[in-house]
Amino acid sequence: MPKTGLSAVLFDREDPKNKWELEELPLPETEDDGILIRIQAAGICGSDLHVWRGDGKNPNDPKEDPKTLGHEMMGTIYKMGRNIKFDSLRNSLKEGDRVIFPYFFPCTSCYNCIRGEFGACKFRSRKMYHEWKYCNSGFSQYYYLQPSHFIFKAPKELSDNTLVSLNCALAQVIEAFNVAKIDFGDNVVIQGAGGLGIYATAVAREMGANKVIVIDGHESRLKLAKECGASDTININEVSTPEERIELVKDLTDFIGADSVMELVGFPAVLEEGIKMCRMRGKYLEIGSISPNNMINIDANYLVTNQIRLLSFQHYDPWVIPNAVKFLERTKNKFPLNNLISHQFPLSDINTAFQKSDWTSKNQNSEITRAIINP
Amino acid sequence: MPKTGLSAVLFDREDPKNKWELEELPLPETEDDGILIRIQAAGICGSDLHVWRGDGKNPNDPKEDPKTLGHEMMGTIYKMGRNIKFDSLRNSLKEGDRVIFPYFFPCTSCYNCIRGEFGACKFRSRKMYHEWKYCNSGFSQYYYLQPSHFIFKAPKELSDNTLVSLNCALAQVIEAFNVAKIDFGDNVVIQGAGGLGIYATAVAREMGANKVIVIDGHESRLKLAKECGASDTININEVSTPEERIELVKDLTDFIGADSVMELVGFPAVLEEGIKMCRMRGKYLEIGSISPNNMINIDANYLVTNQIRLLSFQHYDPWVIPNAVKFLERTKNKFPLNNLISHQFPLSDINTAFQKSDWTSKNQNSEITRAIINP
Amino acid sequence: MPKTGLSAVLFDREDPKNKWELEELPLPETEDDGILIRIQAAGICGSDLHVWRGDGKNPNDPKEDPKTLGHEMMGTIYKMGRNIKFDSLRNSLKEGDRVIFPYFFPCTSCYNCIRGEFGACKFRSRKMYHEWKYCNSGFSQYYYLQPSHFIFKAPKELSDNTLVSLNCALAQVIEAFNVAKIDFGDNVVIQGAGGLGIYATAVAREMGANKVIVIDGHESRLKLAKECGASDTININEVSTPEERIELVKDLTDFIGADSVMELVGFPAVLEEGIKMCRMRGKYLEIGSISPNNMINIDANYLVTNQIRLLSFQHYDPWVIPNAVKFLERTKNKFPLNNLISHQFPLSDINTAFQKSDWTSKNQNSEITRAIINP
Amino acid sequence: MPKTGLSAVLFDREDPKNKWELEELPLPETEDDGILIRIQAAGICGSDLHVWRGDGKNPNDPKEDPKTLGHEMMGTIYKMGRNIKFDSLRNSLKEGDRVIFPYFFPCTSCYNCIRGEFGACKFRSRKMYHEWKYCNSGFSQYYYLQPSHFIFKAPKELSDNTLVSLNCALAQVIEAFNVAKIDFGDNVVIQGAGGLGIYATAVAREMGANKVIVIDGHESRLKLAKECGASDTININEVSTPEERIELVKDLTDFIGADSVMELVGFPAVLEEGIKMCRMRGKYLEIGSISPNNMINIDANYLVTNQIRLLSFQHYDPWVIPNAVKFLERTKNKFPLNNLISHQFPLSDINTAFQKSDWTSKNQNSEITRAIINP
Repeated sequence: MPKTGLSAVLFDREDPKNKWELEELPLPETEDDGILIRIQAAGICGSDLHVWRGDGKNPNDPKEDPKTLGHEMMGTIYKMGRNIKFDSLRNSLKEGDRVIFPYFFPCTSCYNCIRGEFGACKFRSRKMYHEWKYCNSGFSQYYYLQPSHFIFKAPKELSDNTLVSLNCALAQVIEAFNVAKIDFGDNVVIQGAGGLGIYATAVAREMGANKVIVIDGHESRLKLAKECGASDTININEVSTPEERIELVKDLTDFIGADSVMELVGFPAVLEEGIKMCRMRGKYLEIGSISPNNMINIDANYLVTNQIRLLSFQHYDPWVIPNAVKFLERTKNKFPLNNLISHQFPLSDINTAFQKSDWTSKNQNSEITRAIINP
Repeated sequence: MPKTGLSAVLFDREDPKNKWELEELPLPETEDDGILIRIQAAGICGSDLHVWRGDGKNPNDPKEDPKTLGHEMMGTIYKMGRNIKFDSLRNSLKEGDRVIFPYFFPCTSCYNCIRGEFGACKFRSRKMYHEWKYCNSGFSQYYYLQPSHFIFKAPKELSDNTLVSLNCALAQVIEAFNVAKIDFGDNVVIQGAGGLGIYATAVAREMGANKVIVIDGHESRLKLAKECGASDTININEVSTPEERIELVKDLTDFIGADSVMELVGFPAVLEEGIKMCRMRGKYLEIGSISPNNMINIDANYLVTNQIRLLSFQHYDPWVIPNAVKFLERTKNKFPLNNLISHQFPLSDINTAFQKSDWTSKNQNSEITRAIINP
Repeated sequence: MPKTGLSAVLFDREDPKNKWELEELPLPETEDDGILIRIQAAGICGSDLHVWRGDGKNPNDPKEDPKTLGHEMMGTIYKMGRNIKFDSLRNSLKEGDRVIFPYFFPCTSCYNCIRGEFGACKFRSRKMYHEWKYCNSGFSQYYYLQPSHFIFKAPKELSDNTLVSLNCALAQVIEAFNVAKIDFGDNVVIQGAGGLGIYATAVAREMGANKVIVIDGHESRLKLAKECGASDTININEVSTPEERIELVKDLTDFIGADSVMELVGFPAVLEEGIKMCRMRGKYLEIGSISPNNMINIDANYLVTNQIRLLSFQHYDPWVIPNAVKFLERTKNKFPLNNLISHQFPLSDINTAFQKSDWTSKNQNSEITRAIINP
Repeated sequence: MPKTGLSAVLFDREDPKNKWELEELPLPETEDDGILIRIQAAGICGSDLHVWRGDGKNPNDPKEDPKTLGHEMMGTIYKMGRNIKFDSLRNSLKEGDRVIFPYFFPCTSCYNCIRGEFGACKFRSRKMYHEWKYCNSGFSQYYYLQPSHFIFKAPKELSDNTLVSLNCALAQVIEAFNVAKIDFGDNVVIQGAGGLGIYATAVAREMGANKVIVIDGHESRLKLAKECGASDTININEVSTPEERIELVKDLTDFIGADSVMELVGFPAVLEEGIKMCRMRGKYLEIGSISPNNMINIDANYLVTNQIRLLSFQHYDPWVIPNAVKFLERTKNKFPLNNLISHQFPLSDINTAFQKSDWTSKNQNSEITRAIINP
C-alpha cells in the first residue's frame, strides 16, 4: 500500500502557467469511523477559479500560504475504517466501491445538526492543507472522509464524469428548490446558465415548473438550457437592459412575474435586477454570491411592498445526494447534462485546465462549461 | 339620516398647526354588498406621520393635492347593503354592531387571491380622496367597506381603544410570525419597541418563543416591552454600537444568534445590523421599511454563507383579524397592551394630535406611543 | 334567446335502460355577478355511477326524488352578468369564450374561506334540482355559475374533451400532491389506475417523483399508466395477495416503503393494504372513499409506531385549475392523457352511456375509462 | 469504581407484589464515544404499566423472559468516553454533570436520519436485557448512552423530578404540536389529562392556542389541567356520551370544531370520537395508541368529506429536549407541572410503586399522576 499520494498544491504566484505544483503527500490514517477515497474525477467549480485568480485580494496583501483545492468529486473506496459496514442508506460497502459523498462533514451534535440541518452545521468545515499536510483534496489522488461523514454507493449506470458535479452544483440547486418549494405549475427564472444554471433548469422542469426562463449571455449555454428543459431563454446581449429583461419576464408570465427566481451569477447587479422579476409574494433564491464583499444595494421598501421572500442557500442536507443520483438515472436519456463537461485533463495538466477554464468563463462564445480533472 | 359626514382633509402646507382642515363630505352610497361604517376610533400610525410630515419630498416638488388619511380604526355598522346578512365568520350582523375589518379590499379573483393570498392582492387598494370625494377615511366619521370586504363582530369585553390598532399594527406582526413560524422555544429579537414592537413582543411570547429580546432607545418603551413578555431588553443608548449589540444578542443566545429577528424601525442601518443577529439558517422578518427609497447596502455573501432567509411582509390575510381579537381577549389581564395608547383627541383636535405624536416620536423620554382620534 | 334548455333527469327506477329522461327546463336568471355556461362536454365520473346505481340504498328505502347530475365539465359562456368583466386571472371575458371552472362555489366569507381554504368551504354546495328546478347540471345544456364563482379562459390548443376532466379528476390529484408535497426524488405508489390514477401518475412524474408504482387489476390501464409516467406497475391478478404486494413495494423501494401512497379506489381493503406500503413517517393520501359508510378497520398502533401521516382530500383550491391547464398544455405530446376518453355520446344517449360505463367498470379487460356526454 | 450496579428485573409472574426483583448487574464498558449515566430519577410511564400488567397476552402464551424497563429518566454523568468533550449543544461536559437525553439512539446514517428524521430512525432501538445483561435501564442505577447518542446539560434551576418526564411525555407532545403546527389562535382539544395530557395542555397554551379544551374522567386531573392552561374541561362522567361531547366541542368553537385534536388515551372509541371533533380540514394528532392491536373502525368517507389530516407520532427529534428544558424554566412559576408527580420511591420499593400506580390508573378519584423511582 502506498504511503503517499499525488496532490496539486496552489501557490500564490503571478504567472497563471505555474500556480499549481504537484507534490507527493502522505495519506491520512484511516480512523475506525473514517474512509479514505481514491479520487477518480474532480470538477473545476467556479469557486475554485475565484481562489485560483485571487479574486478580492489587494495588491499589497502578503503572500498567501500554499493551499489545496477541489471539492466537486467522486471516487472509489480505498480504505475503510473497521467500524464501517454500510453506506448512509444501509447498503453494504467494500473497498473498491464507487461512491459519492458530501465534501463537508456535519458534526451531528450542535444547534443546527440536532435540528437535522446538517448543511448548516457551523462545524462542518474540513481540515485544510495549511493545518494538516496530507493528500486530501479533490485535485489530488485521495480524499479523507472523517467520522460522521455521509457516503453513498454510486450506480454503475452513471459514469464518473456524470457524477462528478453531483455533490456540489447539482445538490445545491436541488436543496434550494426543495426548501423553497415549487408549487405545481409555478413559473421560474434562472439567472445564469453555467453548470448550476443548467442543472437548475433541468431540476425545475422535473419538479413541475411551468415556465422555466433562463437568462445568460452565451448562446451556446442557452441552447443547452433549452435542451435541458428551459421553456424560454433571454440572451442579455440581445435584451440588453435590466428594464427590458424585467419587462420580458413579466410578459412571459402574463404580467404576474415569476413565482421563484434563482440567482447563480453572483454579481450585485444581477441580484438587484432579479428581485424585480419576482411576483408579489414571490421567492428569490440566492446562491451565486460565493465571494466575500458582494455588496448589494436594494430598496428594502421594494421588498416590503412586494412581500419578497429572499432565501439564501449554501450547502445541502445529505438526503439530496442519493436523490440527485436517481434524478440523473431517470433523466439520462432526456436531458443532455453530460454536455456540461467539455474537457478532461490528467492531474499533471492542472495548470492548463485552470487556464482554459478561466479563459472560457470570460469568453462568451466558448462552449466549455465544466472541466474535469482525472487524478 | 345625514347625507354628509365630517372628515379631516390634509393640505400640503408648511405650518404643522393647520395642515388639517375639517370638511363636510357626502356619504358614499351603500351598494348591495357594501357596508358603511361609523368610525368610533382611529389610531395615528407611523405611516400617517410620514405622509403628514411630507417625508421624502423635495423642496421644489409641486404642491400635492389635498388628501384624507387613517386606516387603523374600528367602528359601528351605520348602514348595511341588502345582501349583507353575516360577518366573515357567519355571525349575523345588524346596524349598530361594533365591528373590526381590514382597511383594504382584496378582489378575491386574481393570481394572488385564487391562492388565498388576500393580503398580497395587487388590486386591494381602496378608493382615494383625490379620485372619490366622499367621507371615507379613518380620520373622519365614516368608512366605506366596498364589496368583497371582510368584516368581524367585535366582542363587548374589548373597548374601542383596545381594538383600534388591531387591523394594522397587531395584525401585521401576527401575519409575519405565523408565516415564518416560530418553532417551540425559538429565540426572537424585536428591533424597535413602538406600537408594532410591543405587539410583536407579546405575540412572540404567546407563540412559544423562549428569549424575546427587544431593542429600542426609549427606556419607557423597553419597560413596557418587559411587561408585555420581553425576556431581555437592549437600550441602544447604553449598548451604543451595532457590534456590541450583535455581540450581546449572541451572548443571550448561547453564541448561536436568534432564530428570528423582526425589523420594525425602517432605517437601513437597523436592517444591516439585524441581519447579523440571526443564527445560521435564521429568519429575518422585514416589516419596517414602509417609506420609499429605503436603500440598504448588504453583503450578499453574508446572506449566502449564513443561509439567511429574509422574509418581507406587508398586510395580512383576513383570518388574522378574528384571531387577533381572541388574543387580546385571553391576554387582557396578562399584558398591559392598552398602555400603548397615551392620548385621545376629538376629530376637531387632529392638528394638535399630529403635532404631539410627531414631537413624541422624536423625543426619547416621552411615554406617548399611540394617539387615538375619536371622530 | 331560448328560455329553456335540455336536461337529463335521473329517476329512481329499477331498469338501467330508462333511469334517465330528458326534460326541457327553464334557464336560471343570470345575476349581475353570475355567468350562464353552455355545456360542451361532461364526463361520467365514478361518483355519478355510484348515485346512478343507487349504491348504499336499502331495498325498503322510499323512492328518491328525481335529480340531475354531472360536475366534470367545460363549456362556453352563454350569458355574463353585467358586473363580469374578467376571469379569475384578470383576463377579459366575453360571451362565446371557452371556459373551465370549479363546479362548486366557495362563499369567500367563512372560517375556511378567510384562511384561503376555498376547497374546504362548508357552504360551497351548489343548488340542487329538488330545490331549484332549472337547467343547471353537467348532463344538461346549461350550468349556472353563481356569484363568488371562479372561472378561467381555456386555451384553444386544448380540445373540449381534453379539458373535460380537469375540474374534477385532475384538479383533485394535483391538490393532494401539492398539499402533501412530493420531495424531490420521493417514491410514490398510486392505488388504482382509473381516470384519477392515470392523472395522478402523470402528475407525480411531473412533480419530481422517482418511482411511480401503479397498482390496478386491468392490464390496459396499467399499460396506459406506463405511457403516462409509471416506473413500475403491479397487476393485482398476478400479485394476488396484499402481503405480496406490500412486499413488492418494499422491494421496489430498497426495503424502505413509499414516501407517499395515494388511494383512488375506495374499498376498505385497499386502504388497509396501502397504509402498510408507506415508509416510516410516510404519507398516505386518501381520496377514493367517496361513498358513505366506507368503514375501515385499522390498527392505530400501526399508525403510531410507523408515524403515518394520513391526509384526506376532497375538492381543491381554485389556483389548481389554471395550473392544471398549463400542465395539459406542456405535456400534451408527452403523456397520452386523451386516451382516458374512450367513448362520446350525445345527451340523448345518456342511458346507453351510463350502462356502458357501468358495465366497463365491472369488467377488467375493457379499455373504456371515461365516457363523455356532449350536450 | 464499582463494577456492578443495582437493577430492577421484571419476571413474568402472577403476583403483582413480587414481579420485580433487584439484581446486581455488571456495568457496560464505556466506549470512546459513549457515556455511562448514573440514574437519579425515573418515572413510571403508562407504557411501563402495560408491560408490567402483561396487557395483550393470552393465558396460554409461554412465560416471557425476564426484562428490564424504564425510559423516562435523568441522571448524572458517571463516566465519559474519551472522545466526549461536549454535549449536543457544544457545552463542555464533565463527570458529575446533571444531564438529560433521549433514551433511544438514532443511527444518524439511514434513510430517515439523512433527512434529519432522527425520531423515525428504524435502527434507533437500544439494547435489551435479554440480549445484553448489563445494568442499563431507567429502573436501575445506570444507563448507557451508546455512540451517536444526544445529550444535554440540565440547568440547576430545575430539580431532578421536574426533569424526569421531559425525555418522554413532554418531548412527545412538543414534537407533535411542532410538526402539526398550531396556527396563532387555533382551538385545540386534548383527549386525556394524564401526564401527557397535562403537558400537552401547557404546551398548547404556550404555543398560541386560543381554546384548549381538555377531556378526562378524573376531576382532579381536569382541575390540574385548568391550572396548566386549559380554557375549558369536559368530564366524561358528566357529559357522558360521545355525541354530547362532540356537540359540546362544537359549541365551544362557534360550531366550527377544533383546529387540532390530540389523542392521548389509546382506546379505539376515543379516536373514533375525537376525529369528529375536528373542523373541516382539521388535524387529528394520534399519540395514545401505544399497545398493539388497537383496532379502530372508522368511516373513511368521513375522513374524505371532512378532509381530516390524521397525523400519528412516536418519539421525537433531538432539538426538542433542550427546548423542552427552556419551556420548564420559563413557565416554572406559571404552571404547576410538578404536581404531576405524586409519589417517590426508592428502587427497593419498585413493587409497591407499580402496584400503587396501577391501582391509581384505575381509580378515578385518586390524585396520583406520576410515580418516580429514585435509584
